[in-house]
Amino acid sequence: ITDPQFTEKYFTQILDHFNFNSMGNGSFQQRYLITDKYWKTGYGPIFFYTGNEGDIWEFALNSGFIIELAAQQGALVIFAEHRYYGKSLPFGEDSFHIPEVGLLTVEQALADYAVMITELKQELVASDCPVIVFGGSYGGMLSVYMRLKYPNIVAGALAASAPILSTAGLGDPRQFFRDVTADFQNISPECSDAVRGAFGQLKELAERQDYSLIKEKFALCKAPSSPQDVHQLNGLLRNAFTLMAMLDYPYSTHFMGDMPANPVKVGCDTMLSGPDLLTNLRNTAGIVYNSTGELTCFNLYKLFVECADPTGCGLGFNSMAWDYQACTEIDLCFESNNVTDMFPPMFFTEEDRESYCTKRWGVVPRPNWLKVHFWGDDLFTASNIIFSNGDLDPWANGGVRKSLSSSLVAINISGGAHHLDLRGSNDADPGSVIKARKTESQLIEEWVKMEKTRLKHL
Amino acid sequence: ITDPQFTEKYFTQILDHFNFNSMGNGSFQQRYLITDKYWKTGYGPIFFYTGNEGDIWEFALNSGFIIELAAQQGALVIFAEHRYYGKSLPFGEDSFHIPEVGLLTVEQALADYAVMITELKQELVASDCPVIVFGGSYGGMLSVYMRLKYPNIVAGALAASAPILSTAGLGDPRQFFRDVTADFQNISPECSDAVRGAFGQLKELAERQDYSLIKEKFALCKAPSSPQDVHQLNGLLRNAFTLMAMLDYPYSTHFMGDMPANPVKVGCDTMLSGPDLLTNLRNTAGIVYNSTGELTCFNLYKLFVECADPTGCGLGFNSMAWDYQACTEIDLCFESNNVTDMFPPMFFTEEDRESYCTKRWGVVPRPNWLKVHFWGDDLFTASNIIFSNGDLDPWANGGVRKSLSSSLVAINISGGAHHLDLRGSNDADPGSVIKARKTESQLIEEWVKMEKTRLKHL
Repeated sequence: ITDPQFTEKYFTQILDHFNFNSMGNGSFQQRYLITDKYWKTGYGPIFFYTGNEGDIWEFALNSGFIIELAAQQGALVIFAEHRYYGKSLPFGEDSFHIPEVGLLTVEQALADYAVMITELKQELVASDCPVIVFGGSYGGMLSVYMRLKYPNIVAGALAASAPILSTAGLGDPRQFFRDVTADFQNISPECSDAVRGAFGQLKELAERQDYSLIKEKFALCKAPSSPQDVHQLNGLLRNAFTLMAMLDYPYSTHFMGDMPANPVKVGCDTMLSGPDLLTNLRNTAGIVYNSTGELTCFNLYKLFVECADPTGCGLGFNSMAWDYQACTEIDLCFESNNVTDMFPPMFFTEEDRESYCTKRWGVVPRPNWLKVHFWGDDLFTASNIIFSNGDLDPWANGGVRKSLSSSLVAINISGGAHHLDLRGSNDADPGSVIKARKTESQLIEEWVKMEKTRLKHL
Repeated sequence: ITDPQFTEKYFTQILDHFNFNSMGNGSFQQRYLITDKYWKTGYGPIFFYTGNEGDIWEFALNSGFIIELAAQQGALVIFAEHRYYGKSLPFGEDSFHIPEVGLLTVEQALADYAVMITELKQELVASDCPVIVFGGSYGGMLSVYMRLKYPNIVAGALAASAPILSTAGLGDPRQFFRDVTADFQNISPECSDAVRGAFGQLKELAERQDYSLIKEKFALCKAPSSPQDVHQLNGLLRNAFTLMAMLDYPYSTHFMGDMPANPVKVGCDTMLSGPDLLTNLRNTAGIVYNSTGELTCFNLYKLFVECADPTGCGLGFNSMAWDYQACTEIDLCFESNNVTDMFPPMFFTEEDRESYCTKRWGVVPRPNWLKVHFWGDDLFTASNIIFSNGDLDPWANGGVRKSLSSSLVAINISGGAHHLDLRGSNDADPGSVIKARKTESQLIEEWVKMEKTRLKHL
């Protein structure tokens, strides 16, 4: 492991980039991490991570590839924290009140990064240093958007596992949980059948209102007492499979909680480990929710937070901020239906979304906005973007899977989970990710060279 | 003249595109003009004028070239009114209160056009119809920005006399009034010398505090009584020359007031018409301020409104809205100094701007914003934009004068004033503008064809 020795700093950021007369007529302190350990000072490129929905240290400590690449290419590395997450709360404890929360938008976050890069380059005497942005998941979306909207500031983007299509309402709402299911089915059809069977048994118990048996089987702290409680349990269980699929890395990790190596395989082994499907299902959920074995019972409403993101808003990330984003710009209307997937039917339609978001935040979602403002699938005029995706990742098919031009490059990582390529090298890495990182490294080196030439002629 | 028979309509527009929890959580009625007289229905392109700082009819009635081009190319024509101008006042009479005025930004205006185009295309069953944006002056800047930020929505832009560089703080603050001066000097050095001499005489009278003679010489309704009044008079006079230079068309026009044909020539003739320079100066100002001869005296503070735009905010355009824009995003810190130009020294520095704008609107201007957000002079990754400029126009050298690539085309119109090319054909047109329009027509036809091919393959 290459210890990057990050320094934690704060940047005085404009509160509201888009209104000169709002409550945002001021500034806030935005956190960022920086290391010049590998930088060819004033000459090497700047690798800038466009922080996403969480504490920036979480991403910095799980994106070792960027550090390895910086060491190779002599780059300065900056990880910027997204406004309203981690310690970058514009209004402190009041940040999630209305109307204070209104300054949480994708556009504001991008403008933050544009302003921060511009000013830090000046401060660091780095005007000739090309900037490459990096991001995973929603952070990858932000990297794409930076290149689309600010090509004057960023020369290229590595967008790892960035679901820019599905979150813009382009695609099939059944895709996500179908692909979660496929991961388990690919281990063995018996595995997905067992999951399906277990959910079926739970459904029967719920229909009989045998709540005490449900409590016992799932080791709940408190017996369910309503269909709502059972719905919550189903959501919690479904989400365990989602997380195992997303985080199906070939070695154990501590990103978004603790995961064993190959969790999908471990999950399937557990699902098929004994005669009682419900016990197996409980133990499988335990891989995610009770990895250390510390919990003596499951608290339904603590372990999973239902919100405008059907994959939940809990588990260490800033739950409220992400809920707000899913209620406004980021469209996550995914469904399970027990036909194209192994889960109970759980729908989240645009109507459900609007009704929930109006109540919760006083906002009306704009399902078309990302298509209008961030181009949807119409990326023809863009350049210098890598769209990398792992085929184990249920988010993958919500992103760009085919290259659109010689500089809009899709990379498939066979056997890869959610932005595996951004993680540091590991002995257990499949050949596909080693190859992907090599391609990424080459493309980024090319972009940096091109941009250096260009900056000279400006 | 091709009568386009515009229909006036209103579009229900989102009040605040960038904050889901602001006072803007609602809509307003945005005016637009539309004509399908020449449209090959559902097939021909859409020519969309990105309205600027004024009543949209003013632009529609002075942009005949767009209509002529539509007739040639079978296009639908839309002229959209900019929010906070004309009848598109989001909060009616309260629109210029604080904080209501805060939703007047370039970004909101662009998002208005993006949303309007998207929805109108759907409504008109025109999804296969490429959109070309047109604009003059600030409207031309908006056309450029539309192509930069929304190439998914617009296939190309004709930006006529768009000072995207000077308004982004790139360039020399002396350029503007130097170029106004050059127009008069090019008629004859005696002309600019006479102007310089007249301003010198005025200065002497002011220094002697001979306010009654100033009143008499300039036919003022009320004698000046302070250096501030003399400053106002100088501003008013300087602005007469600015307007003659900008609107130096070879035939009489009724755009931003009434102008005779070749006003710079007429101005010079007037400046040199009699022995008394001050009388000549008054009569020259009268070309602009008293074209019909109706005024018996000049009201200093009515005829010219000093504001954050050193060329003034009055004369029919929405004075307050433009002042606000010049106080926030659009940087117009131009100076005259009596060395590089023929005018009295009148400075307007960034410090002056900040002090004025803080007092007037409670805002702090962001001089760097257009460079960060709209790329400044770093247009390398853009395409399909025509930057046309007339060399008589003092705004010209604040824009792009050299082609940057085969699809970022600068056109110089020799002997052309402010966006002459957008005006309808006229017998007095110089050959240069006829040629410019032909080039523009060909490029636009190409872009439309390319976009049609592209849309087919999406």
